[in-house]
Amino acid sequence: MGSNPVILEKLIEKFERFPGIGRKTAQKMAFFVLSQTREEAEDFANAIVLAHEKIKRCAICKNLTDEDQCKICRNEARDKGTICVVEDTRDVLAFERTHEYTGVYHVLGGLISPLEGIGPDDLFVKELLSRIKEGETKEIIMATNPTVEGEATALYLSRLIKPLGVRVTRLAYGIPVGSDLEYADDITLYRALEGRRDI
Amino acid sequence: MGSNPVILEKLIEKFERFPGIGRKTAQKMAFFVLSQTREEAEDFANAIVLAHEKIKRCAICKNLTDEDQCKICRNEARDKGTICVVEDTRDVLAFERTHEYTGVYHVLGGLISPLEGIGPDDLFVKELLSRIKEGETKEIIMATNPTVEGEATALYLSRLIKPLGVRVTRLAYGIPVGSDLEYADDITLYRALEGRRDI
Repeated sequence: MGSNPVILEKLIEKFERFPGIGRKTAQKMAFFVLSQTREEAEDFANAIVLAHEKIKRCAICKNLTDEDQCKICRNEARDKGTICVVEDTRDVLAFERTHEYTGVYHVLGGLISPLEGIGPDDLFVKELLSRIKEGETKEIIMATNPTVEGEATALYLSRLIKPLGVRVTRLAYGIPVGSDLEYADDITLYRALEGRRDI
Repeated sequence: MGSNPVILEKLIEKFERFPGIGRKTAQKMAFFVLSQTREEAEDFANAIVLAHEKIKRCAICKNLTDEDQCKICRNEARDKGTICVVEDTRDVLAFERTHEYTGVYHVLGGLISPLEGIGPDDLFVKELLSRIKEGETKEIIMATNPTVEGEATALYLSRLIKPLGVRVTRLAYGIPVGSDLEYADDITLYRALEGRRDI
């Protein structure tokens, strides 16, 4: 470490702060920056500043967008009566990749986690409730991750939403398509059995 | 992909160009940039441009430095008669971490690889030879990686250097400290046997 020039060391430290990036990868990335042309490096730096400047949350669904409302909320063809509630933008991207979902989304910006000190007020829960109270909503699909925090958040929200007379559903649990039964964990297998359907 | 704002998509693409960074990690990194404060993001962008502007290769050993000569070459206490020849700066860092090596380095900037079209002229080979011809050098330690390219480069260089009357050595092959013999590959084990020493 001591033999790295200070400026290089600082750049490596910046890369190390990224989630999932360790010392070695950070070094590799810093060296890659140095191996780029001057123009490429400046382009990269500009992209960072520009993204930070322009990207904000959609006024309706809190998804990331560079306009006042995101593309999905502005799309007339999407069914505004169905709202899929997800943890973050990456989940929206996952659903959009299926090309099957035609409703809209609501991004919570996290999950309720008492251990990390994240409560409902730290998430976009108020915004979800006022969207529902506007009256257009028919169904809320809870699509938080199947983890303890995801389940707790879904349960908490459904208790708030059901009294508003809106149908609340949850993604189906079961064995993943293309997987091997042998390797499925007990709970997943049990849920798959429990949720079995006629064919 | 289609539902990402263009500016965000561009930032993700920049991260995707890094070696070993796939689509998902690039997305994670871009989202991390957005989650930082404005100041942090600008700091990061500045660190990139600054590093690219200031970091260059040492006039002597071709290691990365922000001055004309690197710290190691400027250090009076280092033995200028012993040159450790490595592929790139990361290898210098690895040796420096041992705190045992007191000689100097020569960074080749790559390895000879006909498949990738990299010949001796693309590396700092000329510079190494002229360093040796200056007469101070007593020993050249070949410390290229134990791969086909590393071996070929070491062999090629030693053939050029030996006629100059300088001792050329190679790092010892053997079983790594703390490893399990059971998992050592055949060639390593053979080399360890071949290079056995009296105790």
